[in-house]
Amino acid sequence: MKIGVVGLGLIGGSIALSSKYRYIDCHVYGMDVNSEHLQMAKQLKIIDHQLDETSYEDLDILILSTPVDVAIKLISPLLDKIGPNTLLMDTGSTKRLICRSIANHTKREQFLAAHPIAGTEFSGPKAATNRLFTKQTMIFCETEKTRASLLDVGYNFIEKLQMRVLTMAPEDHDKHIAYVSHLSHISSFMLGKTVMDKEEKSDNVIYQMAGSGFASTVRLAKSNPTTWTSIFKHNQQNILQVLKQYIDKLDKFKSLLENEDFETIRQQLEKSNEIKPILKGIHSNHIQ
Amino acid sequence: MKIGVVGLGLIGGSIALSSKYRYIDCHVYGMDVNSEHLQMAKQLKIIDHQLDETSYEDLDILILSTPVDVAIKLISPLLDKIGPNTLLMDTGSTKRLICRSIANHTKREQFLAAHPIAGTEFSGPKAATNRLFTKQTMIFCETEKTRASLLDVGYNFIEKLQMRVLTMAPEDHDKHIAYVSHLSHISSFMLGKTVMDKEEKSDNVIYQMAGSGFASTVRLAKSNPTTWTSIFKHNQQNILQVLKQYIDKLDKFKSLLENEDFETIRQQLEKSNEIKPILKGIHSNHIQ
Repeated sequence: MKIGVVGLGLIGGSIALSSKYRYIDCHVYGMDVNSEHLQMAKQLKIIDHQLDETSYEDLDILILSTPVDVAIKLISPLLDKIGPNTLLMDTGSTKRLICRSIANHTKREQFLAAHPIAGTEFSGPKAATNRLFTKQTMIFCETEKTRASLLDVGYNFIEKLQMRVLTMAPEDHDKHIAYVSHLSHISSFMLGKTVMDKEEKSDNVIYQMAGSGFASTVRLAKSNPTTWTSIFKHNQQNILQVLKQYIDKLDKFKSLLENEDFETIRQQLEKSNEIKPILKGIHSNHIQ
Repeated sequence: MKIGVVGLGLIGGSIALSSKYRYIDCHVYGMDVNSEHLQMAKQLKIIDHQLDETSYEDLDILILSTPVDVAIKLISPLLDKIGPNTLLMDTGSTKRLICRSIANHTKREQFLAAHPIAGTEFSGPKAATNRLFTKQTMIFCETEKTRASLLDVGYNFIEKLQMRVLTMAPEDHDKHIAYVSHLSHISSFMLGKTVMDKEEKSDNVIYQMAGSGFASTVRLAKSNPTTWTSIFKHNQQNILQVLKQYIDKLDKFKSLLENEDFETIRQQLEKSNEIKPILKGIHSNHIQ
């Protein structure tokens, strides 16, 4: 098995490590524009070889794992480079623009649009682990546009990584993921900012008063700014819609509190409690 | 050591279990208005005896661990009942109204206002654990109003539970805790509500797409509605102020996204990343 990985951060690095962990005979070829990350990936044995012009042709799978606005620029030239039997998969958190960008590429059938629902708040090769994807969900989009034999390669690879596959249209993916991932990140980034802006004017006693609840809600505020800025850019319209709904909920809660309508507040919290059984199904990948 | 506990939920039950775990010779007397919880606490050996009118006099410490709007009604009659050398401690998440309510009580010096910074999203006696407080922070307010010998009792007890103590004025406590606890809960409750309101109109594919990031940010939406409604009531003004700041940050983020000012968004995320070293110091009590 020959796997190439472009972008050796948390996700790309973890795919490299997982491949080596799950396949007895696996060679990983990697590259990263950040030379420090590339060196680190070599030292940590995340990759076996540096991916160069001579290695594209023979790869079974090439994984593209950069921020989405970089990915969209690289997919087309990478499709041009790979051999006739290589599968190119991306791992981006948005799918609509990426799928659109290569819709008319002559080698479109060698591409599989993918998004692994896995991650931590850490980034870079050091954050990579060989178990990040175990029992997690991989979303595939537009599977009908991938050559059947290469789609099989993609399914086999993902099953080997112990992931379950969910398929959907790129537009549906982007709409849904705004709710269950992108909004959580914005909520967390802004929560962190609210508390830190207060802290600058206060002493640091406030952090000694913070417990596990605070840590849990602001955990995602540690996420990579480059990765997330490009996600916000790619999914702007869906995120705006979801963010408006969230702000509206907070505004209404504020009015209830101003009006001292504690009975309605209580009913709303009861309603929020209904998230319990839903959350039970979500496997936690929280690494501290 | 004789300890009484009024309110055998997550916090009261965990204090009972921690006391029995940390003291070789400890008898716990407990009561709860919820008869199911009382029975469960007996069955789970959280308490040794039911707390009744005859047992108040001899207690070393009486812990009051009900929702804050119940606590404020119980403190004064409980002070009336306890013996001359019993220390009464509460565990409420707000301190200003509670301290004010017994400011002129003839036995004020037998009361110690306390708030343990520990918890999980679960509630009731079943959620109680004997290690909930280990290495966590206990906040004491108005320690100068507690009789010196009883304050010693309080400090010794808390140290025995392996907690560190932080002291502050009740007004400061309520102001700071609105930032690092109460806001996190509102953010999480409303995030859960936003996604569930969407879900009602959609199929449940959205939850299959949710990962550990979503789970982390909405974890607190599982918290007890009675406990939290009364906290919001008791700390209304501070929470309103903090909530306004949070909504303002979200509104500004929304404008940046509408105006496609991704450079400023990126800078804001970089700023939010500065929460990293702060969070390192917070011990996680996350129990799933």
